[in-house]
Amino acid sequence: MTAESLPGEDALIAALAGCLPPARHARLAIGDDAAAVELPGGDLLLITTDLLMEGVHFRLDWGAPDALGWKGLAQNLSDIAAMGGAPTHAVVALAVPPGWPTADAVALYQGIAELAKKAGVDIVGGDTIRSAGPLTLSFTVLGRVAAHELLTRSGARPGDALYVTGALGMAAAGLRILERGRAWKASLQPCVDAQLRPRPRLAAARALAASGLVTAMMDLSDGVATDLHRLCRMSGVGARVERDALPIPPLVHQACDWLRAEHTPADPLDLALFGGEDFELLFTAPPAAEAPLRARLAPLPLTRIGSMDDSADILLADGAHAESLPWGFTHF
Amino acid sequence: MTAESLPGEDALIAALAGCLPPARHARLAIGDDAAAVELPGGDLLLITTDLLMEGVHFRLDWGAPDALGWKGLAQNLSDIAAMGGAPTHAVVALAVPPGWPTADAVALYQGIAELAKKAGVDIVGGDTIRSAGPLTLSFTVLGRVAAHELLTRSGARPGDALYVTGALGMAAAGLRILERGRAWKASLQPCVDAQLRPRPRLAAARALAASGLVTAMMDLSDGVATDLHRLCRMSGVGARVERDALPIPPLVHQACDWLRAEHTPADPLDLALFGGEDFELLFTAPPAAEAPLRARLAPLPLTRIGSMDDSADILLADGAHAESLPWGFTHF
Repeated sequence: MTAESLPGEDALIAALAGCLPPARHARLAIGDDAAAVELPGGDLLLITTDLLMEGVHFRLDWGAPDALGWKGLAQNLSDIAAMGGAPTHAVVALAVPPGWPTADAVALYQGIAELAKKAGVDIVGGDTIRSAGPLTLSFTVLGRVAAHELLTRSGARPGDALYVTGALGMAAAGLRILERGRAWKASLQPCVDAQLRPRPRLAAARALAASGLVTAMMDLSDGVATDLHRLCRMSGVGARVERDALPIPPLVHQACDWLRAEHTPADPLDLALFGGEDFELLFTAPPAAEAPLRARLAPLPLTRIGSMDDSADILLADGAHAESLPWGFTHF
Repeated sequence: MTAESLPGEDALIAALAGCLPPARHARLAIGDDAAAVELPGGDLLLITTDLLMEGVHFRLDWGAPDALGWKGLAQNLSDIAAMGGAPTHAVVALAVPPGWPTADAVALYQGIAELAKKAGVDIVGGDTIRSAGPLTLSFTVLGRVAAHELLTRSGARPGDALYVTGALGMAAAGLRILERGRAWKASLQPCVDAQLRPRPRLAAARALAASGLVTAMMDLSDGVATDLHRLCRMSGVGARVERDALPIPPLVHQACDWLRAEHTPADPLDLALFGGEDFELLFTAPPAAEAPLRARLAPLPLTRIGSMDDSADILLADGAHAESLPWGFTHF
């Protein structure tokens, strides 16, 4: 796919990246979950950054400010994990809207601090400004990985199997529940928690990188459909996803039942494929690697959802029937 | 000065930093121009981040978008310079308002690329989102410095002389001219250029760090008054600034004459002390170091503007008369 025909955000990023001179001192620059730069001694320094804005990525009435700090850091930690690395340091910048209580800013930082501590990450700096508009957060996270353990989006080969960790659709179901704006069934709380306080797969990512068995990896921030398109594009391969293999938990079905009873269209398959923000790991490996990988990740569930091929297609298969899997919806 | 009695932005930053667990793997965390983290081999990795928002830090009608990209990167490069370091890599995140032309985003990136090339910095990554409000930019810049060449805000000693590079008040004069919103005299263009396309003192900073003669350093982002207060607080010293020593160039006086003729109050001393964004270097060194430092910086002007002492005061002296130099105005 040419840059011109990319959808939305991906097209703009490609246009902007085209303005920059090629990086001279970087192993990997724009286009993966994080950049990689060589360190003295041979390890790689990983760098990732994200901007989060009220009204685009979150609403202040969805949860306590500490959840917002947690999530902002979590999604950047997930980008480091996606490269096979371990996050080490972070900086955070905050634009505070007029009248936003200092206590809320403090709570937001407490959420950052809580996850930073769990993840063994030092928050070493930041910037705080008065916002002329929405609450805005920017995170940059640094990480470290041995050069031979670096995992990128570009290593998938025809014949590899396609895997995901954990479950799909939980965070997207949580988002729809929050958007519905009515008190939800207590049993659906884990979906809301998945949306507000995602848990990046740091240990799983390190285990996968250390296995030497994984050929390509990324994290699921925009849904299987969009993210698989990106992985296939970077690897120059096609893929076929088996619809019935997608690990959609019963709770996502129950959430969709509740949403429909609340007159809100919701479909478990749509949430799993296009919902995003699951922050699970999507990766490829030869089929023979499945048993050892499963053992390394246990008790975290590992699901084979399809396979990579040398076609130009990304297909969603239902038994013998297969159709094109669209790129999906992005934040842009 | 206790955190509670700090003004505006500094108070909020102190409150937020207080939420974080102490950094375990960092030489320097929050409180200086950049954080410093040990690298394998003994050098330090420097990290700084800034958020820039339309309506807070700039207006889109002040200049071409390329100047905005340039300036955003420039002020982060200046933070790395302030630590004595050389910038190496940067990431940039951009929130684009609805309807902002892609051509303007491309021009903004071209401004970033132009300065990055001059400074020998690789732009290795980024994030691009749709903004729910103002155009917002976030930069994180990494740099490198030998551990024994690191310069911080906390090394000033009583008896040290206080120096600035270059000239003061140019960028603030440029800001007032732009805010006035009327065509300005062509001769004042250098003030506007200083505001829109500041030139961080990268080479001078490295020369000062390599000299081994400098005791403390920072860059002038918020004006001599505010920034000197920060330096004194971190070093635990007082200071006395000689008013007549401040290097205020004739052009700043001419800009103030023009502004007053345009019915806009403007005072050269106010611009120099409280204006900010000069991105010159403010540093301390023993008086005996002046001649060798001057030689190392030539042809860049170096001015001794005062001295450090063991008082609790920060004074502005006019001959024998001296009064307290207020903290000044900040963006917050």
